[in-house]
Parts: sequence; C-alpha cells; structure tokens
Amino acid sequence: MPSSLVECVPNVSEGQRREVVEEIAAAASQPGCLLIDLSLDADHNRSVITLVGEPRSLARGVLELVSRAVERIDLRTHRGAHPRMGAVDVVPFVPLRGVSMADCVELSREVGQAIAERFAIPVYLYEESATCEERRNLATIREGEFEEFSQKIRDPRWLPDFGGPVLHPSAGAVAVGAREFLIAFNVNLATSDLRVAKKVAAAVRFSSGGLRYVKALGFPLEKRGIVQVSMNLTNFKKTPILRVFELVKREAERCGVSIAGSEIVGMIPREALYPAAAAALQLEELASQSILEERIEEALHEGR
Amino acid sequence: MPSSLVECVPNVSEGQRREVVEEIAAAASQPGCLLIDLSLDADHNRSVITLVGEPRSLARGVLELVSRAVERIDLRTHRGAHPRMGAVDVVPFVPLRGVSMADCVELSREVGQAIAERFAIPVYLYEESATCEERRNLATIREGEFEEFSQKIRDPRWLPDFGGPVLHPSAGAVAVGAREFLIAFNVNLATSDLRVAKKVAAAVRFSSGGLRYVKALGFPLEKRGIVQVSMNLTNFKKTPILRVFELVKREAERCGVSIAGSEIVGMIPREALYPAAAAALQLEELASQSILEERIEEALHEGR
Repeated sequence: MPSSLVECVPNVSEGQRREVVEEIAAAASQPGCLLIDLSLDADHNRSVITLVGEPRSLARGVLELVSRAVERIDLRTHRGAHPRMGAVDVVPFVPLRGVSMADCVELSREVGQAIAERFAIPVYLYEESATCEERRNLATIREGEFEEFSQKIRDPRWLPDFGGPVLHPSAGAVAVGAREFLIAFNVNLATSDLRVAKKVAAAVRFSSGGLRYVKALGFPLEKRGIVQVSMNLTNFKKTPILRVFELVKREAERCGVSIAGSEIVGMIPREALYPAAAAALQLEELASQSILEERIEEALHEGR
Repeated sequence: MPSSLVECVPNVSEGQRREVVEEIAAAASQPGCLLIDLSLDADHNRSVITLVGEPRSLARGVLELVSRAVERIDLRTHRGAHPRMGAVDVVPFVPLRGVSMADCVELSREVGQAIAERFAIPVYLYEESATCEERRNLATIREGEFEEFSQKIRDPRWLPDFGGPVLHPSAGAVAVGAREFLIAFNVNLATSDLRVAKKVAAAVRFSSGGLRYVKALGFPLEKRGIVQVSMNLTNFKKTPILRVFELVKREAERCGVSIAGSEIVGMIPREALYPAAAAALQLEELASQSILEERIEEALHEGR
C-alpha cells in the first residue's frame, strides 16, 4: 500500500443510466488512482464514486472524471430528489494515511483551481477548505440549486473561489473541499413506532443538543416493520462509533425499545473499528504493535 | 504481504543471557522469515521468539534457529522456574493467512522430521499434530522434564514420533506441532481480594466448567494493589474475546467487583478485533469489503 493515501468521493448528478456513470468512474481509474466503490441512486438520480490513491495520481484521476462528466451530463435536463448545483456536484478529499488535513485542503485548492481553468466551471471551496465560515456548510452553498445559481453567482457574497462569476451552461458549479472520513451508521430499533426513532435521532444529533459529530434522522423500514436511526458520523476520531451506539441504545431503552441490530453503509476504516473493540474490552491500551497484522507490515517495512 | 502466511513461536530455554537469545533469534531471520517479537523471561529462564513467514522460508528459518540453539544452550546446566525438556522446548506453527490447519500439521511434521535427522534430537508431535490423544497436551508430554527424560523416552508409550529413543545429551527433546493462534488476555479487577480473581478464573475456564477455549488463573498485581484474571484464549474463532470479557465482567459483578481494565500480552489478530467491534456495535454483518483498508488492498490486488 502506498505511504500517502487520500480518498476522494465525487458525487455526480446521474444515477439512472448505469453505463454513463460507469464511463465517468472509469475515466478516473488509472495507475495510482483506484476505483473502490460505485453506488447509484435512481430516485436521487445521483451517484457516489469512491476513489483512493496517492495525492498526485488522485488529482489527475479526478480531473479526468470531471472531463467525462461534463461531456455526458447536462443539468438542464436533469431531475432528481437530491439537491444539486453541478454535473459533478461535490468533490471531497479525505486524508487516509500519511497525509494531514492541511495537505488535503491544499490538494482540494489545486484541483478546484484546475477545474475552473480547464473546464470553465466555477468552484466553491467548502468544509475544511472553506475561505469563510459561511461556505463551510455544503447545504448553504448549494441553496437555490442549479436552476437559481445563475442569479446567486452574481451576488458579491457568493462569488466563486475559483473561476469567473458565470455558471457553466450544462455543468453548473462544483463544491470542492477537504473533510474527515464520513461513516454512515444505521441502528435499527425493535419497534414499528416512528416517533421513537425520531426521538432517539433528536437526542443523539448535534443540531438538537446531542453529540458534536453526529447527524441523525428517524426513518421507517417498511419491509421489516421496524424503524431506523440513520446517522452520519462526521468525525469518528472525536465522536467514536461505540459511544454513539451506546447513547442510541440508552435513549431507545428509555422508551422501552431495544436494538434490533445495526449496519455500516459503505465503508468504515480500521481506525474506527480498533477503538470500538478496545473500548468494548476495556483495554487499557491497544498499541498498533499489539495487532498482529500491523506488526507484520511494520516488520516487512523494516526488512526492506 | 505474502499470500500464504504462517506464524511460528519457538520457546527456547534461555531467558537471561540476552546476547545468546538475540543470536538464536537472528539465525532464523532471513528473506521470507520475519522476526516480529522477542520476549525474554529471566525468572523462567526462557524466551519466546515470534516468527512469521511463508511456509518454506519459515521452515528453513526454524531449522537455523534450532541449529544455533543447540550450539548455545546446554540443558545440563540450565535452571529456571518454567518446566522444559529441550534447549528448543516447543515449536508451534499457527495458520495465519492462505493456509489451513492441515497445512500447518504437515509443515510441523516436515520440520519435526528434519530436526530429528539433522540434529539427532527426538521429536514429539503435539496439539493438532499429535499422533494420539495422549500426546495432544504439551504438559503431559513434558512431564518429568529434561532431568527424567532419559528414562521416559525408553518407555514404549513415550517413544518419540521422530528420531531414536535417545535424548540429545545437551539439547534434550522438542515438541513440534500446529495449533490455533493464542491470545494472552488479562482482565484486572478493582479489588485487592485474590479470592475474587481465583473464583472468576474458575468460573470462566474450561477445566472447571467454563468456556471451551479458555485457560485462566487468578493472580495478585502487587504493585497496583489489585488482582488479575490471567487468561489464554486458545481458539478465538470459537470462543470470541468479547464473550470471554463479558463473562468475566458478570462473574466479577456477582462478587460486587467491577473491572479496572484489561490488556493483551503479545499480539492479537485483526480477525479477533473485528468481531469484537461488530458484536459491541450489534452489527448485523461486517463484510471485509465494508472495511476501508481491506477493500483498498482487494482493489490493489485486482489492479495487478
């Protein structure tokens, strides 16, 4: 595995024509830039493409992906349930190994500038890369969506970070930024009462007084006849997954409801699983040299 | 990382002269056979050497290690608290990746035969490699130790599996076998009452009615003024570590005592940590494709 590793998760505004999404994703795939996941959502008419690679190769791959998406997606005819402002809607970079958040911010700025210059698409920097507090939140940037963005982009408060204040006619605008790894974590409750899921979600999420790095909503799972607390953990290092689970469990118990089970949607890093195991076992310490495979990789490295 | 990986953990009867132990361990170290841990115990006058490698390279490394140990250790002058019958006392092979237990049994037989032929050391096959039930347990084989083994080896019931029924004059005999990975797991109890540790140990260990793959003893931790349940988990796949921890916790609670903390001595495989995390989070499933780094390694492999 390369020593510097970054994840990039472009979201593109096409989730119905699989061949188009696969073509766009394949454009990114090249030596040093691996396509590790591709997830289409037909209702949202949107896809999530997960790439992993060394910073330089990843940047090249992302630019190829944008190039193909601009050719193949026209927002003027795009309809879907999910809000969007661009053919490539959002491009987050996530530090995985051997790179800092500051490195990813720098990478997002380089890629953002290149997108503006090569494709004449206006670029907004968001999350850790944001140039002011107001632009940190993607939802705030995207407000008005593609249809109203020709107006919004001329507002002096909303001049793009890169590129002129002119929307790309078919590809719109794009948000590029750096953020922590996001874990999508759902906990299913052994009840059909949606109010319990909504109450538990409200208790654990940041926006209503809960844990700092948790977003949560209550949903029904129609087929199973139960309900779900659906969460995004936006910083598992500071708000660890086991703490979130245990709080959900306690809040559900308070309503007399037990946990039916839970699931990870997409991927979870080892660095989130190890602490969960260590906390469950009350380990006083879990050094990486104590984990067999980590120690072997270290020894292989020393031996080189 | 190589696709076939075996661990070998030779125990040698020298734990005081560090330079001797390091020389013996270094003899094993060669391309494809990595030395990943070295642990000396002066009171026991015994050392545990942890090697990892592809089966063929590992076998070569182990034979070099035995060769050096025979030169440097003389059991006729050896004293230590731990029972032993050989200069190299025991050589267990453990399947880690891409090899089965049957492969490790076969490997242990090959290495055992080579030890008998090259060094004229009688070899007993134990654990999964044992040729009869009576030889499965190392303690039973080792009974009488080096001092009484010249007698025992002539008993028709105790003829060696490889080599003539003659003890090596200075290096004694050796047990070679295959077994599952062993996790040394200690749980500290928030009490100074040794009876509680002994009671909990008796409740959880196999020999007195507890969990199948658990050995346990109660010890005082003099410096910290608390007590410890010290365990060997001999098959973490069948008796998972979180289940052991939770049973210890319940049994301690029954005596009004809570857990102060726990520790892994040596190493623990990922394959033991992932299920502990999954169980603690009540995950309905934890596929390896859901673990980011496993998925990346898979994608790197596909890309080759």
